[in-house]
Amino acid sequence: MAARKPAAEEARAQEFMRLAIRLARAGMRRGQGGPFGAVIVKGRKVVARGVNRVTSANDPTAHAEVVAIRRACRKLGRFHLTDCELYTSCEPCPMCLAAAYWARIPVVYYANTRRDAAAIGFSDAFLYDELARPLHRRKLKMRQLLRAEAQAGFLEWRDKPDKTTY
Amino acid sequence: MAARKPAAEEARAQEFMRLAIRLARAGMRRGQGGPFGAVIVKGRKVVARGVNRVTSANDPTAHAEVVAIRRACRKLGRFHLTDCELYTSCEPCPMCLAAAYWARIPVVYYANTRRDAAAIGFSDAFLYDELARPLHRRKLKMRQLLRAEAQAGFLEWRDKPDKTTY
Repeated sequence: MAARKPAAEEARAQEFMRLAIRLARAGMRRGQGGPFGAVIVKGRKVVARGVNRVTSANDPTAHAEVVAIRRACRKLGRFHLTDCELYTSCEPCPMCLAAAYWARIPVVYYANTRRDAAAIGFSDAFLYDELARPLHRRKLKMRQLLRAEAQAGFLEWRDKPDKTTY
Repeated sequence: MAARKPAAEEARAQEFMRLAIRLARAGMRRGQGGPFGAVIVKGRKVVARGVNRVTSANDPTAHAEVVAIRRACRKLGRFHLTDCELYTSCEPCPMCLAAAYWARIPVVYYANTRRDAAAIGFSDAFLYDELARPLHRRKLKMRQLLRAEAQAGFLEWRDKPDKTTY
């Protein structure tokens, strides 16, 4: 019977992904934002849902994954989701993928890809290319200022006895 | 007198950066989170400030830059900050840099670097390396599911006549 478990798990994973896909379409149809949905799952339960709300909430960071991660953390009362999985209707953009790393999510399931997103006008693939470039070769200009003055705060953190790391 | 303007602008930029550096230390000392501060500037005015609040707000996305971007957008009532600059006490992590791109911020000033952050225990440099890797070679596992089912939502968006792009 051992062979059955993977199949049952696969079916469950597909159901969570179908929920993310349904959320994506529902959010788009309600005019909340782009066609993206995400679900955070802990064990066999949905902890939080998110849809893209960039244009309706005037929040460029309100991608489905970020919305779902923030909600899951609020609900669970912690800033790490080590025991959770992220299901998202599209490969996360660099912002959302880095958010998943910061939240310590170990596994991400996705459906559409960054190239699919590019095909309907989104800049996810462009952003992956930009972030991999040296700072001086990016479209967004980056300039360093006052590093020496900023170092004091970093050294204070390094030596801080009562800090909470994350 | 034309030579004076760059010097005055440089002095102004330094003042905005000093504010970001002060915010970073104040937030850390209040126990809000890591030693990071950020400021959004429009013209010669500060539109929004942010400090890292990851551990105090239980929000892994509450980096100083994300907090400042969200506040600036809420204040200005829009999801693009094309006419703004971001000043941050440390080179933005991939999440925050991608957030700046999504917000269409054209210029980012930073003080400490991703390597300085690594030296005091933060994973910014690691994340830049991870995001540049092919999906199957990352520490975080990524698995594709049900792309065919997810395509319908993307095509509906492509053909949607009343969409708001971002």
